[in-house]
Formats: sequence, C-alpha cells, structure tokens
Amino acid sequence: MTIGNALLDGKAVDIVVNGPIIESVTPHSPCAVDCDAHGLSVFPGLCNMHSHAPMTLFRGLGDDQPLDVWLKDYIWPAEQKLTDEAVYQGTLQACREMLASGTTAFNDMYFRLPAMARAVADSGIIGRLGLNIFGDGDELDDPEVIDMLSHGGGNVTYSIAPHSVYTVSEKGLRCSAEMCMKLGLPMHIHMSETQKEVTDCIAKYGCRPWELLDRLGILDLLDCNIIAAHCLYLSDNEISIMGKHHVTTVHCPNSNLKLGSGYRFPMLELIDAGARVALGTDGSASSNNLDMIEVMKTAALLQKGWRGDPTVVPAGQILSLATLGHTISAGQPACLFLADVRSLSDLVYASHGDSVRMTMVAGKIVFRN
Amino acid sequence: MTIGNALLDGKAVDIVVNGPIIESVTPHSPCAVDCDAHGLSVFPGLCNMHSHAPMTLFRGLGDDQPLDVWLKDYIWPAEQKLTDEAVYQGTLQACREMLASGTTAFNDMYFRLPAMARAVADSGIIGRLGLNIFGDGDELDDPEVIDMLSHGGGNVTYSIAPHSVYTVSEKGLRCSAEMCMKLGLPMHIHMSETQKEVTDCIAKYGCRPWELLDRLGILDLLDCNIIAAHCLYLSDNEISIMGKHHVTTVHCPNSNLKLGSGYRFPMLELIDAGARVALGTDGSASSNNLDMIEVMKTAALLQKGWRGDPTVVPAGQILSLATLGHTISAGQPACLFLADVRSLSDLVYASHGDSVRMTMVAGKIVFRN
Repeated sequence: MTIGNALLDGKAVDIVVNGPIIESVTPHSPCAVDCDAHGLSVFPGLCNMHSHAPMTLFRGLGDDQPLDVWLKDYIWPAEQKLTDEAVYQGTLQACREMLASGTTAFNDMYFRLPAMARAVADSGIIGRLGLNIFGDGDELDDPEVIDMLSHGGGNVTYSIAPHSVYTVSEKGLRCSAEMCMKLGLPMHIHMSETQKEVTDCIAKYGCRPWELLDRLGILDLLDCNIIAAHCLYLSDNEISIMGKHHVTTVHCPNSNLKLGSGYRFPMLELIDAGARVALGTDGSASSNNLDMIEVMKTAALLQKGWRGDPTVVPAGQILSLATLGHTISAGQPACLFLADVRSLSDLVYASHGDSVRMTMVAGKIVFRN
Repeated sequence: MTIGNALLDGKAVDIVVNGPIIESVTPHSPCAVDCDAHGLSVFPGLCNMHSHAPMTLFRGLGDDQPLDVWLKDYIWPAEQKLTDEAVYQGTLQACREMLASGTTAFNDMYFRLPAMARAVADSGIIGRLGLNIFGDGDELDDPEVIDMLSHGGGNVTYSIAPHSVYTVSEKGLRCSAEMCMKLGLPMHIHMSETQKEVTDCIAKYGCRPWELLDRLGILDLLDCNIIAAHCLYLSDNEISIMGKHHVTTVHCPNSNLKLGSGYRFPMLELIDAGARVALGTDGSASSNNLDMIEVMKTAALLQKGWRGDPTVVPAGQILSLATLGHTISAGQPACLFLADVRSLSDLVYASHGDSVRMTMVAGKIVFRN
C-alpha cells in the first residue's frame, strides 16, 4: 500500500507500506497511491502506555471528590457491577477513541481480560492487557488464567499487573515477577503515585517502594521488563536503581493533576539515570479522556512551567516519548496517523486528538475521518 | 428566536432569545423553534480575558526557545513587518477560532487597533481592544487615537493597555490611568508574570509591582477597573491590595507553563481577598491556541495538582470563572454555545473546543458546525 503526498518534517513524501512494515519513504512524486494524504502531516502512532480501558464507562464519575471518597463511594461500587459485556463495550469505546486520536498501541491494566481481548481484536488497535493482581496473587494459581497469558499473539498480548506495593503483598509481588519471568511477559505496576504511598511503604517495610522491589529481587529478575506508571515521588537512590535496570516509567500528567497526586515528575533525571520515559492517559475515570496529543502538551508544558525553563522537553522530544522512539522511516512498524496540522509544533502545542484524519495500525487503515 | 431542546444541567430546555438578551428558559416542550439543539448541551459564552489576537500569525514561531531569545530573535522582528492588512487577517483568524470554540467575547491588547476593530466587527464576536502603551505613553498625545478610544460601541470597545511596569515609565503608567479615568475605560496590563519582573521592580522602585501601582495612585483612581494578566508572583500584601480594590486578574495557565514563567497562580487566595479571577489564553504565539475549553481544564487541574487536593476548583467553579459568572437564565446576555457533550464534566475535563457546534453572540448565531 502507498500513502501519497503526506507532509513529513515539512516535506511532501510518499510512504510505501509492505505488510506491517514501512518499506520506503521517498520525496513525493506523481504516482498511483492507495491513500492520498492530500498534504496532511504524518506522524508515528502514539503509544498510550498506561490505561484502564473499560473505565471509559466511568468517565466523570465522582469528579472533584477526595481520592478515598472517589474510590470507595464511586469507582469500586461501580466496578462491582461490571459484566463481561460491559467490559467489552467499555474497552471497544476506549479503543475507538484512541484510534480516532492517533494512538495505535496501548498498555492496559484491568480484569475480565478475555472480554477486553475481544474488543481489542475487533477494533484493530494493538493492546497489551495486564492482569490485575491483588493481595497474595492467588489469581496466578488458576491454570486457565496462565493458559490465557501464555497465548497472546496478533494484536493482543498480555502482562502481569500487580496493582501496587500497597495493595499487593510481598508474596504477591514475588509471584507476579516469577510468573512474568516464566512466561516472558513484562510486569505493569503503579509505583510512587502519592506521598502517602511512600510514607506507608516506609512505615510497613522500612524502605521506599523501589527499594522494596529491589530487595525482593524483582528488579534483578525482570530488569528492563518493568513498566511503572506515575513515579512522582522518587528519592535519588530510587532514580539510580531505576536507571540501572532501564525500567520504563509512564508519566500520566492529567491524571496526576486531576487526582491531586502531584506534578513533579522527574522526567529529565530519570532519562539521565538511564530509565525510559513513556506517556499515558490513565483511565478515563481520572483523566478524563484518552487523548495522547493532549497528554503530550500537558507533559511538555508541566516540565517547562515547573522547572521555569521553556527550553526543556521540546516538541520533538515529547513526540519521541509518546511514540517509544518510533519514526516514519524504512524498516519501522507501519503504525502511523495523518493529522490536519502544518507542523509538529501545531500537533503538540496547538491541536488535540480531533485533528487526526486517518490512523494505520501494522499496515492496515483502521480509522478514517 | 427560540433555541429548542438544549440540555442545561441535565434537563432539556427551550431558550427564548429577545434581541441580545435571554428572555426565558423553560422545560422543553414540542414547539416551533428557530434552532433545534437536538439535545446538545448549552453553556454561557466563554470570555477570553487576555489575548493578543493578531499573534495568531506567529503561532509556533520560536517554540521552546529561552524567553529573551523568543522575543528578540523571533517575535519582535516579526512584529516590525506587520501591516494593517496582516493585523486584520490575523485578528479575523483569531476571532473565528474563538467563536468556533465557544468564546463569545475577548479582551485584547495590541496595536493597529482600527484594523483589529474591522476584523472584530466582521466576525461578529465581542471584542475589547487595548491600546498598547510603552515608555512615557506618548501614544496618548495623538488626538486621533483619543478620538478612536472615545468612540467604542456595538461589538467593539476599547481599553488602555500599558504593557507592564518594566516597559512603561511611572509617567506612562499615570498618564494611562488618568486617560482611562477621563474616557471611562478599563486599564489592561501584564502584572507579576515572572520572578524577574518582581526582582527588577524592587531594584528600580524599592517596592513590588502592585505596591508601585498603589503608590502611583492608580488603584485608588481606577479601583476595580483594572484587568491584570498573569499575576503569578504576589506577596500577601499585594493580594490584600488587589482584593481591596476588587481588581480582575486573568490566569493564563498554558502561556505561563509554556514560557516557563511558573505555575503557582494564587487563585483561591485572590478570590478570598476579594479580587476577581478570570481566564485567558494569551496570544497564540505563546499558548499556542485560543481554546478556552482547554484553558478551563489546565487551570482546574493545575490548582488540584499543585495544591495536592482534587476537590479544589470543581468544574462548576472553573466554568463560572471562564464566563465571568454568566448563566443560561432569563435576563442574561444571549451569548452562549452548544457543545456535543453530555455534561459540564465532559465539557471541562474530557473535551476541547472542537466539541462546539453553534455559538451565539448577543442573540445572533455567528458560528455553526
């Protein structure tokens, strides 16, 4: 398939896609094309690295409430009532919203994964679904669950997702990590989201959250195969540990701000230390949408404003974080989108997901507007 | 004119507009309507209280540069080349973008005001155009300028806009205030935008910026008739002075973050002291769009995140600040918009300007999508 006359870094190009891969990117010339971009700008597909897709059903539920009230009086009771069908519908809605705003892959954490997997497959997006683990991780004793986790493929893969160090026991954390190792899956976890989480961890374990993972041997076991959302409250020692193991951190600025969790994500310090930084929306119950273009703007602006320096995290860097470093070039995955903007600056600083006109996942056009 | 079947606070209503005023708002019933809202949500028109409309021409120019480089190497040279025609076109583009995203009135500050006034009139938005004053305010010696400022009416009114305490002399500030008093116009000014502005003011005048305005007699002269953009760096004494005179402060969070100016706008403290708080985008060269729905979200989230409290500045309060307290009720101005959202929460937290489907200014429909 050929995408003709797309604007890439200010130049008109033709993009030849072969199966799921970009085969070539050449200066635009009159030729037969399967998809005429009409001069729209092309960008690599956005990767939403922390979400809870079915929570799209809870958008706006308990806005502006204290965190504990929001969870106990609104979210948890609503989750008790979820059925497979509701999870399917919520996930499908989330996938469609993501595709319509340029996101081609997402990394999720929830439950009722078979229903979610059906929605991901039906939508055409690429999804990694994290099995939420609480307590001692008894979920991992179920052979059916292990069978499911072992059989990811196509657009749907899996991870094991111990919820956090304050909701999962030492045993649960260790079991999760060992099963990740055994099945070759990454671990997805919430880490260091609030000051309270850190304070409680120190009171319970005598060390900070990342020091706990290190002490349990999880960092040595999984190394870079850990994806940790939030990471707002980190000591220098923790940043050093995270950098040594090249863990992936996922910054979710809109969620962190809206829930009052905080705003000082040590993006530059983590990158300097060797950790990876990605971006995410979190669930629509807290963020309240799945618009990664909005997240790019908030993340870049927050670093500039907090640090008092307009030169940090320029538009090119924030796009690179949001796409896991992918580019529009030969040999790269054919995951991309066309947007009605003139430049990268306009995409990041002036537009929203609504500017997206076409989204391609692994060589297939799955959204058009 | 009757707008039928609009969703207001979750209830379907019919809105009768008589001239520029809302005459009645009643529960929806089958009736002849001039504009069928088809269940779209209705909100009072947004007021963008600090902008530089023609700078829409400079969107994306010098992004991610240090503030002084951005001004000296990018913005000021570009402004030297502006013509009346360019200012007209830039203002018209800005007005159209504002109307398309639910803004019905704006408060601006720039130069070449006759060209701007033509664009405002042609677009149908309500604009207050501030004449930028620098140095000693020699601009105010020109009888033609005074004649223009004296003859605002219809959709175009004026203000006098001394740029700031660091670019206007004591004489220029005093002349501006006296001319405001004489012509019955408000004063529009940038105040306390950066720490450097405050430090320099103390070095030059021995007092902080708001203490300087007070010492010059400007606060006693104009009282609440002062509209001050930014106001990030304020002492308790300044907040008290501002509250006593009920000045209007304009929070422009996206601009403050992107330029690295800061993020701690003392919104709650100003309101408690008696000052008024409004919202603005600033010019598209710094913000980089004129989307007040985006500004509402950033402003609310920043207060929650910075203060670590998700309950502060709920959606209803931020809408009230963005609309200067206007509501959809009998006797209010017929400045309103219809948006494709289900609720106020969805408007503020989940959507952008693109959700707007119709905008009415003073009883006239000036945008439809």
